[in-house]
Amino acid sequence: MTSAATTGELPATWLDVPAEHPFGIQTLPYGSVVLPDGPRVGVAIGDQVLDLTSAATALLPHRTRLFAAGTLDRLLAAGPAVWAEVRAALTAWLTDERHRGTVEALLLPAADARLQLPFTVADYVDFYASEHHAANLGRMFRPDSPEPLTPNWKHLPIGYHGRAGTVVASGTPVTRPRGQRRTPEGEVVFGPSVRLDIEAELGFVVGAPASGPVPLAAFDRHVFGACLVNDWSARDIQAWEYAPLGPFLGKSFATSVSPWVVPLAALQHARVPPPPRDPRPLPYLDDDDAEPWGFDVAVEVALNGHVLSHPPFAGMYWTAAQQLAHMTVNGATLRTGDLFASGTISGPEPGQRGSLIELCWNGTEPIAMPDGGTRSFLEDEDEVVITATAPGPAGTRVGFGEVRGRIHAAPVE
Amino acid sequence: MTSAATTGELPATWLDVPAEHPFGIQTLPYGSVVLPDGPRVGVAIGDQVLDLTSAATALLPHRTRLFAAGTLDRLLAAGPAVWAEVRAALTAWLTDERHRGTVEALLLPAADARLQLPFTVADYVDFYASEHHAANLGRMFRPDSPEPLTPNWKHLPIGYHGRAGTVVASGTPVTRPRGQRRTPEGEVVFGPSVRLDIEAELGFVVGAPASGPVPLAAFDRHVFGACLVNDWSARDIQAWEYAPLGPFLGKSFATSVSPWVVPLAALQHARVPPPPRDPRPLPYLDDDDAEPWGFDVAVEVALNGHVLSHPPFAGMYWTAAQQLAHMTVNGATLRTGDLFASGTISGPEPGQRGSLIELCWNGTEPIAMPDGGTRSFLEDEDEVVITATAPGPAGTRVGFGEVRGRIHAAPVE
Repeated sequence: MTSAATTGELPATWLDVPAEHPFGIQTLPYGSVVLPDGPRVGVAIGDQVLDLTSAATALLPHRTRLFAAGTLDRLLAAGPAVWAEVRAALTAWLTDERHRGTVEALLLPAADARLQLPFTVADYVDFYASEHHAANLGRMFRPDSPEPLTPNWKHLPIGYHGRAGTVVASGTPVTRPRGQRRTPEGEVVFGPSVRLDIEAELGFVVGAPASGPVPLAAFDRHVFGACLVNDWSARDIQAWEYAPLGPFLGKSFATSVSPWVVPLAALQHARVPPPPRDPRPLPYLDDDDAEPWGFDVAVEVALNGHVLSHPPFAGMYWTAAQQLAHMTVNGATLRTGDLFASGTISGPEPGQRGSLIELCWNGTEPIAMPDGGTRSFLEDEDEVVITATAPGPAGTRVGFGEVRGRIHAAPVE
Repeated sequence: MTSAATTGELPATWLDVPAEHPFGIQTLPYGSVVLPDGPRVGVAIGDQVLDLTSAATALLPHRTRLFAAGTLDRLLAAGPAVWAEVRAALTAWLTDERHRGTVEALLLPAADARLQLPFTVADYVDFYASEHHAANLGRMFRPDSPEPLTPNWKHLPIGYHGRAGTVVASGTPVTRPRGQRRTPEGEVVFGPSVRLDIEAELGFVVGAPASGPVPLAAFDRHVFGACLVNDWSARDIQAWEYAPLGPFLGKSFATSVSPWVVPLAALQHARVPPPPRDPRPLPYLDDDDAEPWGFDVAVEVALNGHVLSHPPFAGMYWTAAQQLAHMTVNGATLRTGDLFASGTISGPEPGQRGSLIELCWNGTEPIAMPDGGTRSFLEDEDEVVITATAPGPAGTRVGFGEVRGRIHAAPVE
């Protein structure tokens, strides 16, 4: 096992963390750990979690207030200069032997840490930024249309507001929703969804608020970091309800997020140019001459321990910076805790699709499972785990951890 | 002028409030008044506002905490038994001469009261519950379709999530949004909206939270009261963006609400049966055998002081109780401060339409204004005021106050 200390440009931690660990010194994601005497801001390092609330009291006393409530809310609101200061302090504590005595006493095993929703979600917006996903759904639902994408798709990042109050932390069970659907025979019936699906996405977390438009170049002055999102979707409820005002109950029962928020500072080595755009976007969305805000994040989707797909975030047509610029160009304000998700991440290959409806092609090509059975949509007690990593400095990988959820049966009337 | 004291079943207040005053003892709406030393919960009575934060400290000391923060948040969360207790106390203070000394000192002129957003908006949902409005828009936008309503419209209350962070108090200027639109020639352009509209609605404010479905009969155990909503809409932005995921930037720049929340307790005399439904809704939406939750609220829309229309809320196809039952039937939780609006209130007559796009029939029949000009959509510096009243006890009218907003020009690039 190689220590991170030997891999060059990255400072070495005095902790025994293997170089290939996705939560090495290159990552330092933030979460909220519930301890018996209250929540703490935690930072993952290797297989341990640093109690940052306590560490700041000892080592960064002028920032004590930022972490006192035990969630990320105040840190998010503090803005990019403070984010950089805190990350530099964490790096110093974990690499300078002089802090070892203080810091080691504030580490707890990650396996014992109960992690809650890391921040208060203000508004939740979900985009639709994968051309492959949008085209796949277009082909399935509008087979007679010569164009799988709607005419607006390449002009603007399509999005809609979701239900902030039902964003839940990874591990929270997801109860199968009940609702109206129309049968293939045209009958309107009520009952548990029979086409329960996932959507593997990245979510971006707004830190510093804004009173109006956030141009592309200001993206990292407002966005703190990223997490994993599983935007659970009841396709049958959604298909019946969505015209003309969009998804509602087909989505609003639950959206799961990973407990660790990876700061943008940890993703600098993962930045890649987005795919070429045609037509060229309007000026407020045009990033041709700007530093790109694409990210080379490799996502993995597993169902009951069986890997279903590897959606590649690098291929997303619209970047998070474009989504933020679009979301605010009308003058809409931005609050600390606003969460916006990418939309389902799907690549061009069948093994790169981020939803079951694509993987089973609307039920016509059921997915083979290792137990010999097949799966189209989710069954009760199915468990979905989405993980991701991105390139870090010195050959490391930056981990996102996981977002996990198990389906519980719908309540009986 | 007749005093409310002479009108029978209503207790008489020792204040000099005319019987026809919409903020008589029958109403007692709650708001948040900003005083130099901080916000207070206020209650409107006649042309004055009672500082309830201070009054409770003196007269209802075990409830002091409910009002200490100066907004309605804690009162909303306290639930129906406390709502009834507080309303009974207010009624007693304002009708019993023994409290006059204490209470009179805590009244301030309404004209001097600066009112802010009365509660923290959790999730904001907008419905689409007027059959006349939905059919008018269907006729305008899908003229070739034999049916103006989508097939799902009479099966479920169609709704979508809006942006909670841009719900603003009455009087907040509304800046004309900029955005993408497609010209009639098919060109995609960017600039200030040229089809800026209003939507006159009622909003319902959730008090007590719920962990899952709220059946029709539990409506008043969770909903605290109602307010006026103007759901500003940029029709050109909306028309280009809305397929397939619904309205987004065409709505998210601003939604204005009236500063006074009228408790459901004040609307008991306004309850009316909703219109007959065909087909009969599914059981969770079927209110045929239930106490009706329709409300006979008379709305008035004025542009620059000129009354444009009188939308009748009594004719709404779906009630707020049905909307709440629908919104939660999939298991979605409900938070204190959730706000759900009715959708544009439009009646069958041209003078009963609650949006400009209906009043000017998509621009083809411009509205005559008293200055000799016409208006289709909003111009800069236009001011819209929406007011409403409902029947109260003893021949009184229960007032909602007003929601007011003036259009400011879009920012110059």
